[in-house]
Amino acid sequence: MQSFSRLSINQYTVRNWTIPQLLEGCAAEQIPFVSLWRDKVAETGLDETVKLLGDTGIKVSSVCRGGFFPAATLDQQTRNVEENCRAIDEAAALGAEVLVLVCGGLLNRDLDRSRDMVAEGIARLVPYAEQAGVKLGIEPLHPMFAADRSVIVSLSEANEIVELLGSGNLGIVIDVYHVWWDPAVYSEIARASGRIFGFHVSDWIVPVPDMLNGRGIMGDGVIEIPRLRNAVSEAGYLGPIEVEIFNNQLWRLPGRGLLQLVKDRFLTHV
Amino acid sequence: MQSFSRLSINQYTVRNWTIPQLLEGCAAEQIPFVSLWRDKVAETGLDETVKLLGDTGIKVSSVCRGGFFPAATLDQQTRNVEENCRAIDEAAALGAEVLVLVCGGLLNRDLDRSRDMVAEGIARLVPYAEQAGVKLGIEPLHPMFAADRSVIVSLSEANEIVELLGSGNLGIVIDVYHVWWDPAVYSEIARASGRIFGFHVSDWIVPVPDMLNGRGIMGDGVIEIPRLRNAVSEAGYLGPIEVEIFNNQLWRLPGRGLLQLVKDRFLTHV
Repeated sequence: MQSFSRLSINQYTVRNWTIPQLLEGCAAEQIPFVSLWRDKVAETGLDETVKLLGDTGIKVSSVCRGGFFPAATLDQQTRNVEENCRAIDEAAALGAEVLVLVCGGLLNRDLDRSRDMVAEGIARLVPYAEQAGVKLGIEPLHPMFAADRSVIVSLSEANEIVELLGSGNLGIVIDVYHVWWDPAVYSEIARASGRIFGFHVSDWIVPVPDMLNGRGIMGDGVIEIPRLRNAVSEAGYLGPIEVEIFNNQLWRLPGRGLLQLVKDRFLTHV
Repeated sequence: MQSFSRLSINQYTVRNWTIPQLLEGCAAEQIPFVSLWRDKVAETGLDETVKLLGDTGIKVSSVCRGGFFPAATLDQQTRNVEENCRAIDEAAALGAEVLVLVCGGLLNRDLDRSRDMVAEGIARLVPYAEQAGVKLGIEPLHPMFAADRSVIVSLSEANEIVELLGSGNLGIVIDVYHVWWDPAVYSEIARASGRIFGFHVSDWIVPVPDMLNGRGIMGDGVIEIPRLRNAVSEAGYLGPIEVEIFNNQLWRLPGRGLLQLVKDRFLTHV
């Protein structure tokens, strides 16, 4: 049985809200965490966001997002790393538990090289994150995003990079929507023990209405969410559980009603 | 450099054609193989199809498809196996090189049990296939089809079932669209050496226009097709290469024009 003490609302679940609206809504619903997106932080302003967080007492479970390392030139790779350093600065200012890394898609049809670029990019970023005291969480995406969003498509690959680089500031973020299909999901969760920095929930609707914006709310799909949650807990992660749902239909609901629906489903299906 | 000696046209690439149209078109274009779907065979009639194949000299690289093993009751599981036996009979009558197994989707949100049902179903089918002299090819589908079409989502899982059951009539079918994203794709192709019963090509367009019917023609997407073809050849598969493209736009083209386009792309991008 869950309470709401670990509940975090990813900002894109209520995409139409600004940060002031989100924080006001979550405060009214006694939701303790939010996950913020950098474009929304830029819209409200970093200082104002920090002030509103202080006023409401809401904590930031994660900042979305860093990553996107593969690039055609060394210059562009360096600029990507620098942009990630700005994201680390923001995550530090917001007191976020973790900066989520969506590693970036395929370059020039070359999966091997693109994957190497991800590992190289993260290696360059880790010292800056250590100095800033910010955790980096590699989030593998579903293989259907390998071409355009993340060549890191499995927990196995994420765990390999984490083990290779061996920094206490580097771990993984597990989103059930991206990893539920994987025959190795439970062994890889166990392997990540002590290095899990986030856990995201939504559901896989059948049929999928839209690859990018057709995620379901928990209970509407086929993912064994409680089993995955238990596995993640047994691997030592007891931090915030983020509800991250990109869904064209849900975005049409009024924000407060959507938050209440999320709370109901969080109790019954997470 | 490819010639057309290994080219096979999967019937659903020119979906609007009947079997007589398909065989006439392929004969005119000097395409030596086709892959036939059971619904189309039923439409034309098995005997008539066999006769037309004899008339044209075209060979059948595969029959699509058997599989779909998970079922809610033991009775239904048995009926599924019986339906697969009919598919084996048809494949034998058509002189097909292999019956493709699309293993079936998730039952009751239980991936483990669904996967077990697939292995059990194939185990029940193998003796019948051996007796009929028909090869069965497990085709892992892309993980985005795990819920509704195939809980077997990787070459690793397919190889495990093949190794477990240890029949010379059981192997795997490799479709680049389904496996290209997999970090283990090359090691698993090597592992399948001697047990590869088919190789299918198409391409992954960015962005994907439609999960089911948005495959690209070779060269329009990001898959390293020649590299995969070489790996499959090195693993000992030198049989037909099937062009299997489900694409709403291509289906609007006249069939002969589409065949010519496929031949061009086969030469330049496979």
